[in-house]
Amino acid sequence: MEAAARVIARRGVRGLRVEELAAEADVSVALIYYHFKDRAGILRRTLEFISDRAERYTTEHDPDAAPLSPRQKLERNLLLEFQDEAVVRENSTAWGELRASAVFDPDLREDLAKATLIWVQEIADLLGRVQPMATATGLALSAERLTALVEGLSTRWLSGILPLKHARELMLDAIDMELERLARR
Amino acid sequence: MEAAARVIARRGVRGLRVEELAAEADVSVALIYYHFKDRAGILRRTLEFISDRAERYTTEHDPDAAPLSPRQKLERNLLLEFQDEAVVRENSTAWGELRASAVFDPDLREDLAKATLIWVQEIADLLGRVQPMATATGLALSAERLTALVEGLSTRWLSGILPLKHARELMLDAIDMELERLARR
Repeated sequence: MEAAARVIARRGVRGLRVEELAAEADVSVALIYYHFKDRAGILRRTLEFISDRAERYTTEHDPDAAPLSPRQKLERNLLLEFQDEAVVRENSTAWGELRASAVFDPDLREDLAKATLIWVQEIADLLGRVQPMATATGLALSAERLTALVEGLSTRWLSGILPLKHARELMLDAIDMELERLARR
Repeated sequence: MEAAARVIARRGVRGLRVEELAAEADVSVALIYYHFKDRAGILRRTLEFISDRAERYTTEHDPDAAPLSPRQKLERNLLLEFQDEAVVRENSTAWGELRASAVFDPDLREDLAKATLIWVQEIADLLGRVQPMATATGLALSAERLTALVEGLSTRWLSGILPLKHARELMLDAIDMELERLARR
């Protein structure tokens, strides 16, 4: 799975060749097909892997540090895509590619929809812990907007047209605005 | 150019074959290379064409209708991507593809950055006509967020995981929020 994420981040979904993936993972092409059945199987499992890994690096926390407040957890989750670390950049690139490919490849849609829904629910939950009086609908709308904004800004960052620091500022402001709105309704 | 936008919306940037483009445009492969020099030239000119065409379909207005207010123009510009019309869907798909490809293809970045900047400035200008007391920095930040949100939501819509009507509601709410914020500062 790590090899698949690396190859997709390097060549894109459409540039993914099973031979290159096999070489990268240091296994045979036959073994790849044995495990994943077909190309769609590889893509689906990679999507799952990438979203689990993002989950991990957005929730890891030094056990000796003070526990994070819900607001801090929220910012951490939404901003951690915007780090210039190899694994994060690779993960974001591969995720963006799988998203963009789903426009052309109906096979990917169900899994993409599922992964997106899980993320939106996590964010709605954290927003609700910061603003406990907000309605469930309000929380869901804010979470949908914030996660879609991460995706929009992340493509700009990864294609080099938006500096990282600026992307983070835009995101922090958006969180602020959504929380204010939730407090007022 | 129309043929190139169609082929990209159908196959993606990575699936674009010059032979297919020539057949779609009903011209020879040699003529395509004569005009565009190379593949990068085709992509760059298509990006320009797509963004001019979006400009056109977001500003066209029935000459007999009452003139639009700045707020209406703003909503029109930001929501017109979200229409289930063949040309809009094709344009959004091709634009999303060129954006996603720029992550892998540095040749596209300069033109993508230019097209994005023009759009951000248009939106900042319209926001400023609705909220004339807002600062230039505040207007630019709001415009960056709103346009990035259009891009994020548009990929979700085009891949079938977000209903059109819901995308429009999320966008209208976001416009509302940014204008309120600009009014308060």
